[in-house]
Amino acid sequence: MRLGSSGTRPAGTPAQPPLGTALGVVAGSGRPGPSRIAAPVGDTVLDVASLAVAEHGPHAALLQQPNLDGLLAAGRAVWREVVGWLAERLADPDRLSGHLLPATGVVPVLPFTVADYVDFFACEQHAVNAGKIYRPRGEPLAPNWRHLPVGYHGRAGTVVVSGTPVARPAGQRGPGDMGPSGALDVEAEIGYVLGSSRGAAAEPVPLEDALDHVFGVVLLNDWSARDIQAWESRPLGPLLGKSFATSISAWVTPLDELAAAWIDPPPRDPPPLPYLLGPTDRGLDLTLEIWLNGELVSSPPAADLYWTPAQLIAHLTSNGAPLRAGDLLGSGTVSGARREQRGCFLELAWNGAEPVGLADGSARSYLLDGDEVVITATAPAVGGGRLSLGEVQGKILPAR
Amino acid sequence: MRLGSSGTRPAGTPAQPPLGTALGVVAGSGRPGPSRIAAPVGDTVLDVASLAVAEHGPHAALLQQPNLDGLLAAGRAVWREVVGWLAERLADPDRLSGHLLPATGVVPVLPFTVADYVDFFACEQHAVNAGKIYRPRGEPLAPNWRHLPVGYHGRAGTVVVSGTPVARPAGQRGPGDMGPSGALDVEAEIGYVLGSSRGAAAEPVPLEDALDHVFGVVLLNDWSARDIQAWESRPLGPLLGKSFATSISAWVTPLDELAAAWIDPPPRDPPPLPYLLGPTDRGLDLTLEIWLNGELVSSPPAADLYWTPAQLIAHLTSNGAPLRAGDLLGSGTVSGARREQRGCFLELAWNGAEPVGLADGSARSYLLDGDEVVITATAPAVGGGRLSLGEVQGKILPAR
Repeated sequence: MRLGSSGTRPAGTPAQPPLGTALGVVAGSGRPGPSRIAAPVGDTVLDVASLAVAEHGPHAALLQQPNLDGLLAAGRAVWREVVGWLAERLADPDRLSGHLLPATGVVPVLPFTVADYVDFFACEQHAVNAGKIYRPRGEPLAPNWRHLPVGYHGRAGTVVVSGTPVARPAGQRGPGDMGPSGALDVEAEIGYVLGSSRGAAAEPVPLEDALDHVFGVVLLNDWSARDIQAWESRPLGPLLGKSFATSISAWVTPLDELAAAWIDPPPRDPPPLPYLLGPTDRGLDLTLEIWLNGELVSSPPAADLYWTPAQLIAHLTSNGAPLRAGDLLGSGTVSGARREQRGCFLELAWNGAEPVGLADGSARSYLLDGDEVVITATAPAVGGGRLSLGEVQGKILPAR
Repeated sequence: MRLGSSGTRPAGTPAQPPLGTALGVVAGSGRPGPSRIAAPVGDTVLDVASLAVAEHGPHAALLQQPNLDGLLAAGRAVWREVVGWLAERLADPDRLSGHLLPATGVVPVLPFTVADYVDFFACEQHAVNAGKIYRPRGEPLAPNWRHLPVGYHGRAGTVVVSGTPVARPAGQRGPGDMGPSGALDVEAEIGYVLGSSRGAAAEPVPLEDALDHVFGVVLLNDWSARDIQAWESRPLGPLLGKSFATSISAWVTPLDELAAAWIDPPPRDPPPLPYLLGPTDRGLDLTLEIWLNGELVSSPPAADLYWTPAQLIAHLTSNGAPLRAGDLLGSGTVSGARREQRGCFLELAWNGAEPVGLADGSARSYLLDGDEVVITATAPAVGGGRLSLGEVQGKILPAR
């Protein structure tokens, strides 16, 4: 069992517990069009596009599109209607016949066009660990860290869907030193998928309105080549150490589905400025898991994130930069206080000083060719129990 | 005269010398569609879309699109045909009647959808000056600077066309300090507009093929809020200090039009790694000018850029990250060795220590509300003389 006591995940074992109401896009269904909006239903996939037409569902035209772009642009009121309708239908599986596709017959594709991708650094434990590793004699946190959510723009064009293999990147690893990365890492993150609730107004989004811009959540693996990143990053931050690939889960879990997952944020010292404070400043109590070749290696708790999604949005727009539908915000690596809660191998193996021992007797400081990484997450479900947010999977191919 | 000896530019004076063959997109023409592909012809604008239909020009369908996206995706061979056809038509203005629109009747719009925007830091003089200002006791250049073109991803969604006003951004300027930027700056840059010559292959682009991916060149003003940028940038680089707006010129000058502008790059020490060396490693001999409220304040020479466009592309793809049509690469601020060649006010006024005196008796360390900045450039023209690359203009509005 993937999430059972054995701690190993045979290939192909479906996610447990079941996914909630979620939306994605699949190709290869044999139905019209290059790809179709779909929803996961156990071992099958619901053709949401055909169901919406057959049942005269709300906003059926948006659901006929080849991806979620139109739905994301439609805003919160439309999302509520569509997700509510879909949740109702999923509760009555007998009425879905004729619209279910075998999951084995379809291929998930990137569910939306990524507009801008901004990756934050919102987890204190991760920032402290990275600081201790890279600046052992200095303060682990930069002076700005407790005042604002530090972040940077990543490469939108290399965001790929779960299941896409990742070739080991090559690049400059130091002066005169060019070759395949010897420090290829994962970063287990939450991705916030933004839609537009009021067009492209160039106004700061107040914290109290920020969550109206979030359609839902994906799992995100911000693959990182630590050697390339360390050499290139001064003074403008990471570029090629990150830009080769960022993987997201195939299914987007709408924010409404996570209504039972909101929790108070951790205490902050000093208190954030007023534009970062308010009742929507709440975190999501998701538990992530990192699986390496079927073995559980870490369980990072997103509840520990210092900066919440509403804060990321209020900050990102504080200079007037408008949001676009399809913007993707990464939380940054999620790491808990304990070693087995760290969200990347940089921290898990402390930059190679403490390799992670695996059940097969091998050890890892960083990823080897052929390694398969799966990141999963669960959340408290509305009505009790837990729901799955699916998974983001990727396998490392040798350098080209 | 704008480029004359007086050094002042009355508002509305057209660019001199004339623009070469260039392409852009205009709205408000009274012709069908939301916007049309166009070309500048003196005080008028050529409706390229209608001319292409009337003359059965090459690839007329691509030229009917509401922007340059389709043309950019079509690749070098198509660009050659289209630009060659257009240059021939522009040489015979009598045949253009019926397709010319008064420039006063149209509004330039963003000529293409920006995919990813990467801003480099390719000018040694600028990097040295910035290093001296920000790290007066350290080495001005980071250890990586002479080994690779340092750069970062900017915000694609806030790239705007020349003429768009820019509101002074607000943001965190230090611990507990929130308010309008007091250090709003320009950065005079060259923008390289990329198209696709072979799809999205995830392979490094060899230096010798790199220029096949460049459709053309725009002028780029990478507006920067130095106080916001300085506070936020550790350790992941600039975000909100840049993301409020990046302006580009309305007209894209195709690379073929700049055939006479190629020059040898400056000497490099140490020699770059082999993937950054080859016969296409050449620079563009453009002379930029920065005009503040009609007064010439600087003439940065792009010939001094240390890293050439072919190198930027070879480096950006060295990790396998694919390019997309519509990717925009900024050169970074262009600065020459002399004070009157510096490409931003950070350097011109040495971070406020040496304010720039203006003809009206005022002085500037950074931009004031109401200031109008125009950046122009000229290049050696094929057949002798010089051609203009147009301008990128923006006026500062007060903070919201």
